[in-house]
Parts: sequence; C-alpha cells; structure tokens
Amino acid sequence: MEVEDLGQHISRRFNAEIVSLHSSVLTMGGLVQEQLDRAIEALRERDSELGLQVAQDDFKVNRMEVGIDEDCSRILATHSPAAGDLRLIVAIIKTITDLERIGDEAEKIGRLAARLAGLERPSTNYRELRNLARHVKQMVNDTLDAFARLDATGALEVVRADEVVDEEYESTYRQGITFMMEDPRTISRVIDSMWIARSLERIGDHCKNICEYVIYMVHGKDIRYTSVENVEAEVRQAIQQSEAVS
Amino acid sequence: MEVEDLGQHISRRFNAEIVSLHSSVLTMGGLVQEQLDRAIEALRERDSELGLQVAQDDFKVNRMEVGIDEDCSRILATHSPAAGDLRLIVAIIKTITDLERIGDEAEKIGRLAARLAGLERPSTNYRELRNLARHVKQMVNDTLDAFARLDATGALEVVRADEVVDEEYESTYRQGITFMMEDPRTISRVIDSMWIARSLERIGDHCKNICEYVIYMVHGKDIRYTSVENVEAEVRQAIQQSEAVS
Repeated sequence: MEVEDLGQHISRRFNAEIVSLHSSVLTMGGLVQEQLDRAIEALRERDSELGLQVAQDDFKVNRMEVGIDEDCSRILATHSPAAGDLRLIVAIIKTITDLERIGDEAEKIGRLAARLAGLERPSTNYRELRNLARHVKQMVNDTLDAFARLDATGALEVVRADEVVDEEYESTYRQGITFMMEDPRTISRVIDSMWIARSLERIGDHCKNICEYVIYMVHGKDIRYTSVENVEAEVRQAIQQSEAVS
Repeated sequence: MEVEDLGQHISRRFNAEIVSLHSSVLTMGGLVQEQLDRAIEALRERDSELGLQVAQDDFKVNRMEVGIDEDCSRILATHSPAAGDLRLIVAIIKTITDLERIGDEAEKIGRLAARLAGLERPSTNYRELRNLARHVKQMVNDTLDAFARLDATGALEVVRADEVVDEEYESTYRQGITFMMEDPRTISRVIDSMWIARSLERIGDHCKNICEYVIYMVHGKDIRYTSVENVEAEVRQAIQQSEAVS
C-alpha cells in the first residue's frame, strides 16, 4: 500500500467514524424525544403506569450518553482531528450532555404525571401545560433537525423560539399562583404542575444550548451569551461569506 | 537545538499549559463560590441591591467559561494529547459547563432574594433555606478541593453528601406546602423560597457531576449513573491498585 493510499484510507475511516458519531447523536435525540412524548401522554391520559415507565427508561438515555462520550474520546485520541472536525467533536460532547439533561427532565415529568394521575383532574385537564409542551416538543424536533443538517439558520430560529417558551412559562406560573390563592386545596396539584412547566422551560433552554453548539460547529463562532440580534447578524454574515466563497 | 530538546521543550510547554488550564478552572470555581455566597447573604440580609448585583455579575462567569473552552480546543488542536491528558481536558470541558450552571443558579437566587427583600420576612428568616445553603456551600467547597487535588476519595464523599442535600430539599419543600395551606397569603413568598431551595438542590447535583468527572480524570472510569456503593467499591479498588504499583 502506498503512503498516499494509507492517508486516504485513514481519512476515509475517520470520515466514516464521524458520520457514525453524528448519527448516534441523532439516535439518542430520537430516544429523548420519545421519552418526552410519552411523559406528556402520561399527563394527558392520567396514565400513572406510563409515567413511571418513562422514569424507569431514563437509564437507556444515560447509557447512550456514556457510549457516545467514549466514542468521542477514542476518536480524539486516535485521529487527533483539527479545525472543523475537532469543533464537531467538542460540540458533540456538549450536545449529548444537554440531550441527557432533556432526558432527566422527561423523567421528572413522567414521575410528576404519575403522581398527578392519582389526584383530581382540573377542569382544564392541564391545557396550559399541554400548550407549553407542544411548543417545547416542536423546539426539540427543530433542534434535532438543525443538528442533523448542520443548519445554522434553523438553529437560530430555535434560539428565537426559546423566548416564546419563556414567556408562556411565566404566564403558566402566574396562573398557578392565582389558582392556589383562589382555592388552597389545589396547592399540591398546582405545585406539581408548576414543576412540570419548569421542566418544560428547562428543556427549551437545553435546546437553545444545543442550537448554539450547532452554530459553533458550522461557523466556528461561540455565540453563547450573545444577544439574539447579534447572533443573527453574525450568522447572516457568515452565510454570506460562505456563499461568496462557493 | 537537538530533536530531543525540542521534544522536551514541547512537553514542558504542554505541561505548563495544562497547569494553567487547571488553575483557570479553580479561579472560575472561586468566582462561582463568591457569587453563591453573596446571593445567600442577600437573602439573609434582605439586601435587594446585592441580590441584583449578583444577577448582573453572572456575565463574568460566562466570560470565563468561554475563555477556558477556547483554551481547551486550542490545546486539543495543537498538542493532540492522549490518555490521561486527554481525559483531563475532556473532564475540564464538562466541568466548566457545570460550574457555569452553578453560576446560573446563583444568579436566580440573587434575583429571588431581591424580590423577597421587598416582602414581609417570615418568623424563621428562611432558617431552613440557610441550613440547606450551608450544606450546599460546603459541597461546592469540597468539590473545588477535590478538583484542585485530583482527589477521588474526596470527590466520592461529595457524591455521598448530595443524598443528604436531596433529603433536606424534600423536607423544605414539604414544609413550604404546609405553610401555604395554613396561610394562603404566604403563597407568593413560599413559592419564591421553594425556587431558591430548588436552585440549591440543583447546585448540589452540579457538584456531584463535577466530582464524577474528577473520579473519571483520576481513574479513567466513567462512574456516572452507577450507584454510590458500586462507585465506592471501584474507587477503593483503583486506589489499592495504584498503591500496589507505586
């Protein structure tokens, strides 16, 4: 085998490993999505068994995180990737931490849904929570899409959507306080539903984090802690630059 | 310069960079600790200005995280470290994410303390919260110690201490529900103090995460999602093995 062939061979193997890593993250994302869907179903259908099942199944998410983490370390050690590839791997190490924490929040929602199933149902059947959940589920979906297609523009839209989720969360929270003041017998139930709202809001935050890593992967710019407006300007500029090059 | 000298030179520079990275993380840890201390002081002293100052200062923590993150990527790209050094850097990338999130929780506590300063003080002056805070502050302190000395045994003690914090949090939570039921006029205030308890409990979780990375750095074993008993057995075994070698 010629040296050049060997180089190509290594690089091809490396590419295959990166592709497989990227797809493992998406598989993990799919599992997390399923956990969240089932947790919300448990709430809506008052299915305490399903809620507890979600909580139990969290170990599957954790197991995937550890596996991908090991793959990342192995690739870093054997291939010493540089520039874009290195950014991709560092971003993946961070992404799976956030995915795992979305899994943790789904676990908490599952447990709370199981507890709420045993209590009297409010007349709204948690409509406000289900609205919030719908938005957050969409965010998770769009986040995984942006990650799959390494789409910085899509990622930026998710970062924007998080502001809407935060506003909805605040309004759910204020409504909860009003309910409790009006009828203190509902306190336990309202507090539990507030925890669920809080978990959903945190899932939105994790999606935002992941989307920031996507933008970092694509453009090499760390845009955490930058205002949405500045980020938007930066991403637009970067897209124009890459269009000018190609 | 001989090739050998050059090798030594590079390795010496690499070591210096690792030492400086390690000490940057400790500086960031010190800042996070200070933020938490001030947030709790704001609660105790009903000092709304201090509470808001803590919230404002969170950007300093974020700035440090971005800086250390960049250093990690640069070291990975220029030195392609292997084995123990690679583990150290991967663990640092994860550690600073948790430190940054401890900073976020301190920010939230600061804001809530500022809001509570304007409300009537309960007869206990939040004694139960301050107890919980004392334990959590000790955990942060022990976590940074374990990280500074790469001390797996100390890290393991922190993992154990988190169980105590979780229990205290549960009891604070139940007490809050009782207060609200007894006197619904306290609802807003109790809910705010519950959020503080929740933030403190989450800080405990982040400390636990960091300590798990410390154990991973020292022994190369990923012990997340393992029961405390199993972790204890593994760390003991690893310590015995390293004693047998030296």
